[in-house]
Amino acid sequence: MLRPNPPLFITLEGVEGCGKSTQARLLARGLETEGYSCLLTREPGGTPIGQEIRQVILNPRHQQMSPETELGLYFSDRAQHLREVVWPAIAAGKIVVCDRFTDSTIAYQGYGRRLSLQKIRSLDRIMTGTYRPDMTFFLDLPLKVGLARARARNREEASLDEGRFEAEEIEFHERVRAGYLKMVRREPERFIVVPAEENKNRVQKSIWTAVNTCIGRRSKTEL
Amino acid sequence: MLRPNPPLFITLEGVEGCGKSTQARLLARGLETEGYSCLLTREPGGTPIGQEIRQVILNPRHQQMSPETELGLYFSDRAQHLREVVWPAIAAGKIVVCDRFTDSTIAYQGYGRRLSLQKIRSLDRIMTGTYRPDMTFFLDLPLKVGLARARARNREEASLDEGRFEAEEIEFHERVRAGYLKMVRREPERFIVVPAEENKNRVQKSIWTAVNTCIGRRSKTEL
Repeated sequence: MLRPNPPLFITLEGVEGCGKSTQARLLARGLETEGYSCLLTREPGGTPIGQEIRQVILNPRHQQMSPETELGLYFSDRAQHLREVVWPAIAAGKIVVCDRFTDSTIAYQGYGRRLSLQKIRSLDRIMTGTYRPDMTFFLDLPLKVGLARARARNREEASLDEGRFEAEEIEFHERVRAGYLKMVRREPERFIVVPAEENKNRVQKSIWTAVNTCIGRRSKTEL
Repeated sequence: MLRPNPPLFITLEGVEGCGKSTQARLLARGLETEGYSCLLTREPGGTPIGQEIRQVILNPRHQQMSPETELGLYFSDRAQHLREVVWPAIAAGKIVVCDRFTDSTIAYQGYGRRLSLQKIRSLDRIMTGTYRPDMTFFLDLPLKVGLARARARNREEASLDEGRFEAEEIEFHERVRAGYLKMVRREPERFIVVPAEENKNRVQKSIWTAVNTCIGRRSKTEL
């Protein structure tokens, strides 16, 4: 039997190799086990159209891609993802767990590539109506640990995914992390920082506790 | 020997089947024959990245694509095309002939799909800096003639390109044409309307005369 649950949009953010994809899966599985109706998704690539956009963005042959093009592609993916997947799920009363969202664009394209934050905000307004998650986990990881993890994984899986980003210089990733931390300070009510260097189960537990508290609080307000 | 020529950005616009692609080719060939250094290009798809974006946009399976996604993809293609192809060619003193540009987006996504023109203008500002051609030919064609032409061509070539648009209802194409005519009235100094129902050679001649006059005028101002 499904529990009635407050519609909730939860995102996971962090630098490469911080474990967000794994934790997103674990959280979604945990929610389902507890009887909640849940949808696990990701950006870029949460729709069939988005999958094709993802291929264009992450293709390591596209070194000459302009920052504006990249920005436009991320928001095109997001516009489709929201309208085709996220908003219908929320409207149907589901809990949506999403691996990366707009905060990634602000961190990577804004702080990382130094694209004007004002431009990103304008695009965000046009493409998503400045839509924001109810809660966002920032899985914080010292840079070197994360990059080493991501590289090992890519070699293992012979995956081209995210290959272009991992080739970026270390300063880029430092700017990205600093950007995330700025956003966390600006919206402490939405962000929850989880130290991601700890073991997987501990990280999972921290996330689970925070989500449960939030669901409990929301259910109470609705009574 | 190449003639020195004033850098010039010329675009061709019009509804489906109006003959812009043919005329763009003829114009570029004519300019080359006269000794001008010229670049023929098109949107969407004027770069390798743009080719992949074009595949996503025009895929007839993507009926569920949101208007915002489509808009974002067109401008992503354009941002790349300007930076990788158009601006470097202009900077190198070439005449650039381009099959479709921002006016197409305003006509199709704005007037056709009724996306807010203000949103399109904001996106245009972010992605291109509101960059405009020096001269734009609007190949005007009664709607039924254009659609019949385009359909016949697609059947012939078994091409999927532009398939999604030709499936649109007739009212959509009427709004697009009316949109073009509004833009023409608003910027009469940039637009040149060419009746495209006439035979190919006549259309070619009208375009050639106008371009030659413009080159002559520009060369004089530069002396």
